[in-house]
Amino acid sequence: MRQQPSFTVRELAERVQGRVEGDPDRRIRDVNVVEHAGPEDITFLTNRRYLSDALASKAGAIVCSPEEQVAGHTLIRHPHPYLAFSRLIDLFRPRPERRVTGIHPTAAIAADAAIGKDVNVGPFCVIEAGARVGDRVDIGAGSYVGEGVHVGDDTRLMPRVSLYAGVKVGKRCILDSGVVLGADGFGYTPGPEGLPVKVPQVGSVVLEDDVEMGANSCVDRALLGVTRIGRATKIDNNCVIAHNCEIGMGNIFVAQSGVSGSTKIGNGCTFAAQVGLVGHIELADGVMVGAQSGVTKDWPKGSVILGSPAAEIRFAKKRYAMIDKLPDLREEFLALKKRVAELEKKVAG
Amino acid sequence: MRQQPSFTVRELAERVQGRVEGDPDRRIRDVNVVEHAGPEDITFLTNRRYLSDALASKAGAIVCSPEEQVAGHTLIRHPHPYLAFSRLIDLFRPRPERRVTGIHPTAAIAADAAIGKDVNVGPFCVIEAGARVGDRVDIGAGSYVGEGVHVGDDTRLMPRVSLYAGVKVGKRCILDSGVVLGADGFGYTPGPEGLPVKVPQVGSVVLEDDVEMGANSCVDRALLGVTRIGRATKIDNNCVIAHNCEIGMGNIFVAQSGVSGSTKIGNGCTFAAQVGLVGHIELADGVMVGAQSGVTKDWPKGSVILGSPAAEIRFAKKRYAMIDKLPDLREEFLALKKRVAELEKKVAG
Amino acid sequence: MRQQPSFTVRELAERVQGRVEGDPDRRIRDVNVVEHAGPEDITFLTNRRYLSDALASKAGAIVCSPEEQVAGHTLIRHPHPYLAFSRLIDLFRPRPERRVTGIHPTAAIAADAAIGKDVNVGPFCVIEAGARVGDRVDIGAGSYVGEGVHVGDDTRLMPRVSLYAGVKVGKRCILDSGVVLGADGFGYTPGPEGLPVKVPQVGSVVLEDDVEMGANSCVDRALLGVTRIGRATKIDNNCVIAHNCEIGMGNIFVAQSGVSGSTKIGNGCTFAAQVGLVGHIELADGVMVGAQSGVTKDWPKGSVILGSPAAEIRFAKKRYAMIDKLPDLREEFLALKKRVAELEKKVAG
Repeated sequence: MRQQPSFTVRELAERVQGRVEGDPDRRIRDVNVVEHAGPEDITFLTNRRYLSDALASKAGAIVCSPEEQVAGHTLIRHPHPYLAFSRLIDLFRPRPERRVTGIHPTAAIAADAAIGKDVNVGPFCVIEAGARVGDRVDIGAGSYVGEGVHVGDDTRLMPRVSLYAGVKVGKRCILDSGVVLGADGFGYTPGPEGLPVKVPQVGSVVLEDDVEMGANSCVDRALLGVTRIGRATKIDNNCVIAHNCEIGMGNIFVAQSGVSGSTKIGNGCTFAAQVGLVGHIELADGVMVGAQSGVTKDWPKGSVILGSPAAEIRFAKKRYAMIDKLPDLREEFLALKKRVAELEKKVAG
Repeated sequence: MRQQPSFTVRELAERVQGRVEGDPDRRIRDVNVVEHAGPEDITFLTNRRYLSDALASKAGAIVCSPEEQVAGHTLIRHPHPYLAFSRLIDLFRPRPERRVTGIHPTAAIAADAAIGKDVNVGPFCVIEAGARVGDRVDIGAGSYVGEGVHVGDDTRLMPRVSLYAGVKVGKRCILDSGVVLGADGFGYTPGPEGLPVKVPQVGSVVLEDDVEMGANSCVDRALLGVTRIGRATKIDNNCVIAHNCEIGMGNIFVAQSGVSGSTKIGNGCTFAAQVGLVGHIELADGVMVGAQSGVTKDWPKGSVILGSPAAEIRFAKKRYAMIDKLPDLREEFLALKKRVAELEKKVAG
Repeated sequence: MRQQPSFTVRELAERVQGRVEGDPDRRIRDVNVVEHAGPEDITFLTNRRYLSDALASKAGAIVCSPEEQVAGHTLIRHPHPYLAFSRLIDLFRPRPERRVTGIHPTAAIAADAAIGKDVNVGPFCVIEAGARVGDRVDIGAGSYVGEGVHVGDDTRLMPRVSLYAGVKVGKRCILDSGVVLGADGFGYTPGPEGLPVKVPQVGSVVLEDDVEMGANSCVDRALLGVTRIGRATKIDNNCVIAHNCEIGMGNIFVAQSGVSGSTKIGNGCTFAAQVGLVGHIELADGVMVGAQSGVTKDWPKGSVILGSPAAEIRFAKKRYAMIDKLPDLREEFLALKKRVAELEKKVAG
């Protein structure tokens, strides 16, 4: 067992600039999730679904928002409780310092590839001619860095990532196992025989700084020009971004979402899981899209949408509610029809 | 051509403890699917959709349930016909014995990794410091086994699997190409600039015994604690299990399904293809979820649900039927409105 | 900067057998997309959505269909404008000639594997016993070619492709990074304990000539017999084709689509993104399926379908429209009910 550091609640609150409510001298030795936390653990409450768990928790302290009601517990209140708790994770569970192990002797690196300072290249990596790899980059085992690829400083490729020729990746990006950047866009046109004929995809892919991509996600090469993923956009596992998309900054794509070709997305949008966007549409900044939605048209700034086809969320929810009441509506309709028939009889009679 | 063994129907029935109906002396030399089976093949009927194919089949014998009506054929009746047929596949098409080829000279194995007996490690594999690999394990070519990973006895990693640091895999698991275990959970929180900031994911992933995962599927590392996949749960291709999920035993996830973070699933549930579950919900044992469903809330034991949002299946089917009849309902409504208008005229007149 | 070749519009029209409208002597030095094209670029217009962009474009010339109205621009009219433009991409942006670099010294190739002429095998590839690789094949870095696999002439495996034992790939196929062919079909049956037991999958996978598969897509091995992908079928990223499917020629599967087991598809069908097909159904030739559809039954030749469950497109659109009008219908219904109640009062009175 490693020796955990320990802090008082007061010390922790100071570090995250939060406000203590309850016992500031209580000693905390670890972070934990609400249901497993013990008297020397600090936990967090950011989702009201877990309020009863928090009330029943044995945690020594709880990080929560300024207005949350959590009677009987020592609290650290913070306007951004999840951000504050993140810092406590870093404090109690510091990740190991990055070690510079250098270039593994098995790596196959082209003579003219430019490799920065303090770079790690894992076993069985390939770095092709003309590639430029920045400082402090990690290239995980078995990754492929194609001809002329650029990888920015402090970027980390986990094992088994593929960067096709010409792709550009910014600084401080994180690409998980199975990520593929720069495969040909999916472009075909009917040939003389009627069978699909490949349309050459001669563009590229650009990931700006601080982009993260989850396992087995991919971004395709543009037909012409580039497919661009803007700064600090975060993409979860098994997502697909098609050719010629232009994605802005700070967007969130949850798992298994896909964006069809040439679609443009502003900044700060959120796409819950398994969302699909058709091609050739534009979403402005701050659009929020519910899980499994199918987005079929342009949406203005700040739209909150849901469903397939996606509609403004209040309408979408009304629509769902109406669908659920359809059997009732049908019954009521038949009853009314009967009443009308009786009236007709009376009036005729 | 290999020399196939041959057996009488009686001999086959004895091996699977089934009951012959028809000619027990008929000689069978192979297994085949119903439409391609010939007079020396045995086939199976478990899906009523193929009853007419079975009736028309040239198969020498058919494995089916005790009550199935398949006139004119020699049958082996068995209460679990697919299980019985599985054993016949093993009999006629025995898979080659596992060969122990040992550790390929190209594999990069840390000095302090503990490798069990009779282990195969393919070319270009990486096994990092502190990893523990059980007996009779196969590590397919190009796979990555991170620091401190445990792999249980008799587990098979196909080529190109990634196990991130600290992941634990049980005994007799099978992980197909492209599987990624232990990539960081998808956790971000708005930072001071408004852009998403990564929440450290310091938990791990545990796969219990007999879990199987299809190609390009992934399970993410927990925020804290573990993301757990219970014993004998089977996950198809391109599925995603998010951080902190707790999945019980013997569940079936068909292709392209996804489970969002912190969701809990009991035992023996079935998720047909392309299903999505939101985070922070609980499904009890034996829940069955239809294809493309979106599960948005808790469901009790034995629920059978369908649709997006998912509803109890009888209601969901009624709902679909009502939707399909909406154009008719509209027509009927307009007709009724006309009748009311006429009545109003008459009553007023 | 490379020196671009230059051509007059007349010369370009001759090369693609198109018809000039406007200035045939205008000089063109590159291809570009409509919004970025300058006076020395040629662009294309195939999607009416971009008509206003085309009208406003600074492009020197535009390739479009014979009937398109694009006033004020020099045009090359062609009955298949996207095909014509493809040829211009090839002309202005010729891809580098394939170089024969041969077999990388790190590749692990079984002594009895048969490798054709002018084959490239990248670093860290594995080619197992009995594999047969045709002429002019590229095997990308880190790819795995299993025992007895056949790869046809001129086929290209990008880096990190997995072909399991016995798989057959035709000529001129392109398989992107992360493609997995021949993983076991997803077949389980309840065992004595109630937990799922694996049904042996002893069939194989056949890809016919000119098939292309996008990043992280997979085709599973058949239970018995083969899972077959017909000639010139094109499959986008993260798609899944299950065991025993029989897919015809020239089909298009857009990203994240999936086909369940034993389903049969004719020729020339199109599956927009995120489509799912249940197992054991048959689609005839030329079926077109809208994005996110769920196909639950057989469909005849030329069907155009949409929705989950999928319905004939005109009906599906009517259905969507009716759903959107449900809140109105409810209001109208309540109003009518009130009128009937008033009538009843009057008639009774």
